[in-house]
Amino acid sequence: MNIKITGTGSYIPANIEKNEDFHNHEFLNSDGSAINAPNEVIVKKFKAITGIDERRYAKNHLNTSDIGSFAAEKAIDNAKINREDLDYIIVAHNYGDIRHDSIQSDTVPSIASRVKHLLRIENPKCVAYDLLFGCPGWVEGVIQANAFIKAGIAKKCLVIGAETLSRLLDPYDRDSMIYSDGAGAVILEATTDEGGIITHNSATFALDEAHFIYFGETNNQDSKDDRRYIKMYGRKIYEFALTNVPLAMKSCLDKSGISINEVKKILIHQANEKMDEAIIKRFYELYDMDMPEGIMPMTIGKLGNSSVATVPTLYDSILNGSLENQEINKGDVIIFASVGAGMNINAIVYKQ
Amino acid sequence: MNIKITGTGSYIPANIEKNEDFHNHEFLNSDGSAINAPNEVIVKKFKAITGIDERRYAKNHLNTSDIGSFAAEKAIDNAKINREDLDYIIVAHNYGDIRHDSIQSDTVPSIASRVKHLLRIENPKCVAYDLLFGCPGWVEGVIQANAFIKAGIAKKCLVIGAETLSRLLDPYDRDSMIYSDGAGAVILEATTDEGGIITHNSATFALDEAHFIYFGETNNQDSKDDRRYIKMYGRKIYEFALTNVPLAMKSCLDKSGISINEVKKILIHQANEKMDEAIIKRFYELYDMDMPEGIMPMTIGKLGNSSVATVPTLYDSILNGSLENQEINKGDVIIFASVGAGMNINAIVYKQ
Repeated sequence: MNIKITGTGSYIPANIEKNEDFHNHEFLNSDGSAINAPNEVIVKKFKAITGIDERRYAKNHLNTSDIGSFAAEKAIDNAKINREDLDYIIVAHNYGDIRHDSIQSDTVPSIASRVKHLLRIENPKCVAYDLLFGCPGWVEGVIQANAFIKAGIAKKCLVIGAETLSRLLDPYDRDSMIYSDGAGAVILEATTDEGGIITHNSATFALDEAHFIYFGETNNQDSKDDRRYIKMYGRKIYEFALTNVPLAMKSCLDKSGISINEVKKILIHQANEKMDEAIIKRFYELYDMDMPEGIMPMTIGKLGNSSVATVPTLYDSILNGSLENQEINKGDVIIFASVGAGMNINAIVYKQ
Repeated sequence: MNIKITGTGSYIPANIEKNEDFHNHEFLNSDGSAINAPNEVIVKKFKAITGIDERRYAKNHLNTSDIGSFAAEKAIDNAKINREDLDYIIVAHNYGDIRHDSIQSDTVPSIASRVKHLLRIENPKCVAYDLLFGCPGWVEGVIQANAFIKAGIAKKCLVIGAETLSRLLDPYDRDSMIYSDGAGAVILEATTDEGGIITHNSATFALDEAHFIYFGETNNQDSKDDRRYIKMYGRKIYEFALTNVPLAMKSCLDKSGISINEVKKILIHQANEKMDEAIIKRFYELYDMDMPEGIMPMTIGKLGNSSVATVPTLYDSILNGSLENQEINKGDVIIFASVGAGMNINAIVYKQ
């Protein structure tokens, strides 16, 4: 028995927020001090580091569960399965549904229950739960579905990553330009077809690293607002990721017995272009190799960092032909890899 | 190989909130209308239905992750394992950390990462994630840990249920008297010992039932507060639970091949005493039997409904001898069962 992805889908929100749209923001350092540069320079520097030109925000009336269900509909159609045959709906997210006019996260019922409701699935044996694991949540959901199939308690699973980070942005924080909304989904099935999930690796670094990504107050210290927003220590994350992600990927690949030369694509969490490139370069250095051209398809330029949604959206974009000059063909070995809040890291070696 | 609970622990918050403490509340119906009875009568009727005399609230400086880590410390000690040998930390909750002075749920990093941090566990291979599955989240966490052990990706798992519902209470809502704070934890291990998890069952009813428990506004319609609170349609839940929980338990027990006569204890989610009794009575009716005396140990009278924490706290209380006239002995068959937001139901047949 192999365990394969038999359908993919994604939802890219309609509202485009361009870098220029931030030109009138008042950006401040985290200590509240002014940044000694005009906004045009701040934004240009941001673009040079992250590779982000524009990002997507969900329309006001849509929440994480809505866009998750849109991606799921497409994955179900793509897999050509009967939705009533699903054994699990796993939704990875980090903040639940946050209405555009609210600062409260709504996680009861779970986002997975809401998605199941929106998909009009009746079968009570289809178990719907939410998984919180930082940005690597969707990859971890695939690993959990894989375990359920192996343990004999599931045959078909829907794994969704959905997030609306636009509802959590401190307007005074440059880092807010990174974040985006989105949703991606796959169907995972037990099959006699060749390929599928070969090896996987997961890790949680929580001794010194637990609060590298956190919920914190605005950079505007004059504000009377005690609302908290998504916040991060970028430099610490960069160093952490560069040290640990290549090693986790290597450990996963070596366990598979597959040669590095057979790897056709690496689908890495769209966190930050420069960081992602540095990670993949260092991964190849571990094998005394240069990074092959085109190995690392990217969507971050146009889609930003939508947390749990980046990897399934990237994968779906390649398979449905909407990402230029990128393809994955039957038999290709690919690596999914992610890093994020927790701090969590994971990787999957997968044969198409 | 069997999969057994080798250690338990729980944390019962220090602050006792008695029924009398609600005598000065202004209770309103959900449509904002006055309730045609003095508070003493409302509270007395509440006690007659739910069985609740008092409940526990965590002290202001403690959050869900703190009390979860307290329960976990005890479970680790009780199991006499090295914490660095844990493969998973699974934390079931529904609302994350809500500081006493905030209305925002904080779920980044995950509560499991925070617990791992508080436990000072270094090993990155110990994967920490959060599971959102309504009140049945802790039982579901045990089912997931069981699957990971069966799939060969884990040997020792820590499964925690922790919640601070006191941070989510609408003071104008009678139902707020139900909710409580608490945390319970177990260590689950692969072992050659006899017994352990025999069968399990999970279900999600989300077609009409998804929003029976929800996040809603205060009953006080004059309030300008748009904050949302934990809310439920009690009557609908009662009917739903009475129809579906006994059947789910029966299906789980029948699958195990164990006779109903061998069942020594049923540890059911402490939702509401009258509802719990009606469920267990109906379960026995399915076997043409009367409910045996003492089959259903209860903590709700003194501890209220602490969501995901009730079942592991109840189990720990029996094993550590703090629940009068109740015991579970080696070889005893017990059933864990739960129902809650989602709407989710699950059950485990377990041999001590």
